[in-house]
Amino acid sequence: MNQVKVVKIGGKVAEEDDDLDDFLTEFVKMKGHKVLVHGGGVIANKLAEKLGIKPKMIDGRRVTDRGTLDIVTMVYAGLVNKKIVAKLQALGQNAVGLTGADLNIIQATKRNPVPIDFGWVGDISSVKVNWLKAFLEQGIVPVIVPLTHDGKGNMLNTNADSIASYVAQKLADKIETELIMCFDQPGVMENGTVIKHLDFESYQGLKKNKIITDGMIPKLQLGFKALEENVAKVTIKNFNSLNDDTKGTTLQL
Amino acid sequence: MNQVKVVKIGGKVAEEDDDLDDFLTEFVKMKGHKVLVHGGGVIANKLAEKLGIKPKMIDGRRVTDRGTLDIVTMVYAGLVNKKIVAKLQALGQNAVGLTGADLNIIQATKRNPVPIDFGWVGDISSVKVNWLKAFLEQGIVPVIVPLTHDGKGNMLNTNADSIASYVAQKLADKIETELIMCFDQPGVMENGTVIKHLDFESYQGLKKNKIITDGMIPKLQLGFKALEENVAKVTIKNFNSLNDDTKGTTLQL
Repeated sequence: MNQVKVVKIGGKVAEEDDDLDDFLTEFVKMKGHKVLVHGGGVIANKLAEKLGIKPKMIDGRRVTDRGTLDIVTMVYAGLVNKKIVAKLQALGQNAVGLTGADLNIIQATKRNPVPIDFGWVGDISSVKVNWLKAFLEQGIVPVIVPLTHDGKGNMLNTNADSIASYVAQKLADKIETELIMCFDQPGVMENGTVIKHLDFESYQGLKKNKIITDGMIPKLQLGFKALEENVAKVTIKNFNSLNDDTKGTTLQL
Repeated sequence: MNQVKVVKIGGKVAEEDDDLDDFLTEFVKMKGHKVLVHGGGVIANKLAEKLGIKPKMIDGRRVTDRGTLDIVTMVYAGLVNKKIVAKLQALGQNAVGLTGADLNIIQATKRNPVPIDFGWVGDISSVKVNWLKAFLEQGIVPVIVPLTHDGKGNMLNTNADSIASYVAQKLADKIETELIMCFDQPGVMENGTVIKHLDFESYQGLKKNKIITDGMIPKLQLGFKALEENVAKVTIKNFNSLNDDTKGTTLQL
């Protein structure tokens, strides 16, 4: 194995079965070894609402109290992950769903409650890729859930972009690795147009001028961090243009 | 690897964190290679109730409509499985949570809706143990969820006792295998006393005389079937006496 692609999809694509089917069909067509990292926030919010738990957000990040941790564990590791794995199997692609706790692949530290208490949220402290590599070598797709564990018996809620970036960084130590972050927009936008190539200096300028804002900032920071840590290529694109190399935004240092 | 133990626990032990901690501490102490199969019905019923979905049972078996399938997928593969895996990791026991869809270990056929439509319920059609053996050889405990898949993209609800018995039968083809079915009673009971050894003929008599009834019948049938298929030992016992060989009911052909 000398190349691997780490693809991240947001929760929105998993919300509608048709969108998910379209995406997974493209994903299976994509050549070479691959890892899939998925979110599920939109579905988790809906379940929380049905159960009368109001999602609490600070700076675009979910506050994970005990009830919310149970909900995201159910939705991410249960509903969304198993839907993806079963659909991949139906497409003839063997796959295995994994949280950070499974095979101890991703351990995290519960975030310091000062200055803001985000609850059961984990910042990644270690990523182990030996089992991921063993699966990839057998043609199996690891489907990674955005949940980690603290080594003390607790699951922790961890941002899916972070998981994708860290897994890509760790794989890049040994294998040529590409990171593809898919979402519901065509790429990083400036005045209604996709930025084809975005370098770190331009990003800083666009951030300063409030053209790049909100959730795009941590996503790009994780993308640039991956490039710094030897990930060969980082692209941000729409989930329906996975196999179209002319689409999306490619990051450059 | 020349020996393996397949342990099944019901959903009740997973309901209370203290009970689960006690059980898992004993489970980790148990010597040798081991597989854990768990239920989760009690917790699934509670979630269904909160969501206003009334569990429908026929002959002690759950009818799995689409909403119920989502609930059991969330509770079994998400909440209960990840709680167990994270706790095992905290006890220093590496583990991996798996449904039948993961690595395609257990495929099933949706049950014929005639005469009774049980909905999204699967009867096991194939069990593959190559990955289970690979994990066991590395000292990793597979923690198996009572969900299978149909190879057409659907998860299916499958009885946990069946999963434990079939996995034990398949492992027994190559390795000396023991099946331990744990529940909340001390064993198979007759007039308030545990039956130490139960052979198939006595079982038939006790069933005829309505001393063995309800859920115990399919459990025992799966136990005897395992013995027929070369599982070396089958025991039914309380989950708090896992490591006490003097407790429980041992089946004999």
